[in-house]
Amino acid sequence: MTIFTEFDLMRELHQSGDKIVLLVMDGLGGLPMESDGLTELETAHTPHLDALAAQGTTGLAIPIRPGIEPGSGPAHLSLFSYDPVRYEVGRGVLEALGIGFDLQPNDLAARGNFATVDENGVIVDRRAGRISTEECIRLTKKLQEATGDVLPGYQIFVLPVKEHRFVLIIRGEGLGGKLTETDPLVTGKKPLPVRDESGTEEGRRTAALVNRWIEAARKVLADEPRANSLNLRGLSKDPQLPKFDEIYGLKAAAIAVYPMYRGVARLVGMEVVEFTGDRPQHEVDALERIWNDYDFFFVHIKKTDSYGEDGNFDAKVHEIQAVDEQIPRILALQPGALIVTGDHSTPAKLRKHSWHPVPTLLWSPRAIPDAVQRFGERACAGGHFGVFHATNLLPQAMAHAGRLKRFGA
Amino acid sequence: MTIFTEFDLMRELHQSGDKIVLLVMDGLGGLPMESDGLTELETAHTPHLDALAAQGTTGLAIPIRPGIEPGSGPAHLSLFSYDPVRYEVGRGVLEALGIGFDLQPNDLAARGNFATVDENGVIVDRRAGRISTEECIRLTKKLQEATGDVLPGYQIFVLPVKEHRFVLIIRGEGLGGKLTETDPLVTGKKPLPVRDESGTEEGRRTAALVNRWIEAARKVLADEPRANSLNLRGLSKDPQLPKFDEIYGLKAAAIAVYPMYRGVARLVGMEVVEFTGDRPQHEVDALERIWNDYDFFFVHIKKTDSYGEDGNFDAKVHEIQAVDEQIPRILALQPGALIVTGDHSTPAKLRKHSWHPVPTLLWSPRAIPDAVQRFGERACAGGHFGVFHATNLLPQAMAHAGRLKRFGA
Repeated sequence: MTIFTEFDLMRELHQSGDKIVLLVMDGLGGLPMESDGLTELETAHTPHLDALAAQGTTGLAIPIRPGIEPGSGPAHLSLFSYDPVRYEVGRGVLEALGIGFDLQPNDLAARGNFATVDENGVIVDRRAGRISTEECIRLTKKLQEATGDVLPGYQIFVLPVKEHRFVLIIRGEGLGGKLTETDPLVTGKKPLPVRDESGTEEGRRTAALVNRWIEAARKVLADEPRANSLNLRGLSKDPQLPKFDEIYGLKAAAIAVYPMYRGVARLVGMEVVEFTGDRPQHEVDALERIWNDYDFFFVHIKKTDSYGEDGNFDAKVHEIQAVDEQIPRILALQPGALIVTGDHSTPAKLRKHSWHPVPTLLWSPRAIPDAVQRFGERACAGGHFGVFHATNLLPQAMAHAGRLKRFGA
Repeated sequence: MTIFTEFDLMRELHQSGDKIVLLVMDGLGGLPMESDGLTELETAHTPHLDALAAQGTTGLAIPIRPGIEPGSGPAHLSLFSYDPVRYEVGRGVLEALGIGFDLQPNDLAARGNFATVDENGVIVDRRAGRISTEECIRLTKKLQEATGDVLPGYQIFVLPVKEHRFVLIIRGEGLGGKLTETDPLVTGKKPLPVRDESGTEEGRRTAALVNRWIEAARKVLADEPRANSLNLRGLSKDPQLPKFDEIYGLKAAAIAVYPMYRGVARLVGMEVVEFTGDRPQHEVDALERIWNDYDFFFVHIKKTDSYGEDGNFDAKVHEIQAVDEQIPRILALQPGALIVTGDHSTPAKLRKHSWHPVPTLLWSPRAIPDAVQRFGERACAGGHFGVFHATNLLPQAMAHAGRLKRFGA
């Protein structure tokens, strides 16, 4: 008896076929503000998405596991068919990708937080009073200059993210191990040293290198009024995921405005496409331009999530409508399969990501038009895909695009 | 690549939050007596449960696996999020817990059946003519006195259950192995000796000890008119399950009338609450009394199952209605999540447990009100949870009660 993984099946069965579009509205799923009301998607006037739902197949996607509130990185891995519970990507890596850093396979990345400590080195504020992003830029530049060469033989990158958050990358041979974080997660304690839990010589050496950098960096920060110390979290390397072309035989392109999503797409082997503008129509402009050059297109819309987190129900509705208006242009390109979904729910009512399953449709000339006539949370509960794990979407798209051979004789 | 189990996820993500109520109507699911009729739950007048279904999220729970008729023990383990196919609990342990015995980690427990044998030792009645419970009490007392010290260095407990059923517990060091049962499951054969299938020295020794006790016990019973022999089944030890507080950070209480359910609850680390009365309103009295002392409340209603097994459709309907009347009192306590479900189906039409999936609702201020407006088997098939494994319910309750942190950045 041979056990195949889902990826093995795809490796064995994939063939050439039609083009696939994965259109992701970040945080698409929502909630009614009152229990007898409509959700954001149900409220939006979406004639084109409704037509796709009527002609296509629908369902509700579970991004991670039932009840689990997804982070953006894991939620996208899941849409790309990598079970994020199985394929763990470190926070350092996600943060580095998030700022568009060109992470190399040997790089060690960490998420950094500026912090405030008292005269005994005890943490009094884990976020250094949430300093401004301008302050963050000044401080990372100062660190880059003062600590860039404290580890002979290694290159150091200290880069700003936002407010108290930054990224540290150490580049060089032989970095690795299973490294602990320095943040004790509460105030009133001193930062912890980085330790290695892998028990390898490589891990032990790497922990020592990181601790040496931390010591130098804290000295540089010592005279700062607020950000006079720092912590490192999520020390990790590129997890070397199997890539889209190898699993699916797909040449894949990513069209996304925000660095984070470009980064996760790169992690699975997509090429990131450059374009100007940041509205849905600009992303579809890019899609039209590159249509002949790729097999698979990931198009990411960010603002649906941002408005959800702001609690701005109406703005989220309008953004969904702006996407709806672009649907005819995508259809005109004649994809073999078009998926419209979200990476997770971000109900304006909760002002944050949530665990609720995500309304999803797959349009294709080969799809079964289920009984669902509208694109919405409650409507999609009656769809032919049922309630399903998001990792199933890509195999479905492959099938509907004519890209999978028969399994068995 | 790190593999997390669902329990690892919960261990990592749990935080404090609102209170959770798991209200279980045993054997809730039913069938129409005629194919064009209504089920017990659909027949019942349940305005409060219907309102919960309308405001909350619904679905159909599979207790064990599709098509598998659940026993009460495994079905409850599943509701408590322990996959019973993975976490096996022996019948001896369940029976011991069922009578409220304080089982210790080293104890070996067996389910005993009094039986009738002929002059050649061949079984003629595997249940000894279903002797009365009073007879059972007399016989176990007789066995306790006569066989309590036949295994030097070991303590023996022989305790009555009901009719021909009793429990044997052997307490002492070094008991174990994988032990077979003595009951040949048909009349016309002699009881079998206990054998060890683990191949360990411990198992071999334990089998010999148990056989020695059986021999002594059968001698004591030899002059009884009906219960002149016995069989042992389900020889097992406490499986040492991971506990609720450790996995979920929940301080959990069990409110149940019947010992069996109190026992299974204890197995996963719940505290069993004492109270007087045996009607649903008495159980809600207890719930109100202990509300401030716990995070999680398992409330078990037995009679829905008993009436189902009796084939008493109307009485099951009335018991469901009696539970419905208590719902406003539970809501008044303002839980963060209230689940109403059954451990399995017990259709009056079949007069026994069945494999049919169980109508389930989760009410919470954070729930998506799906399109389902009534609480019933057919209505819940259109719910947002879809058809799901019962082990998913607890993570869903955790999420809806605000008790889970985000997964990943």
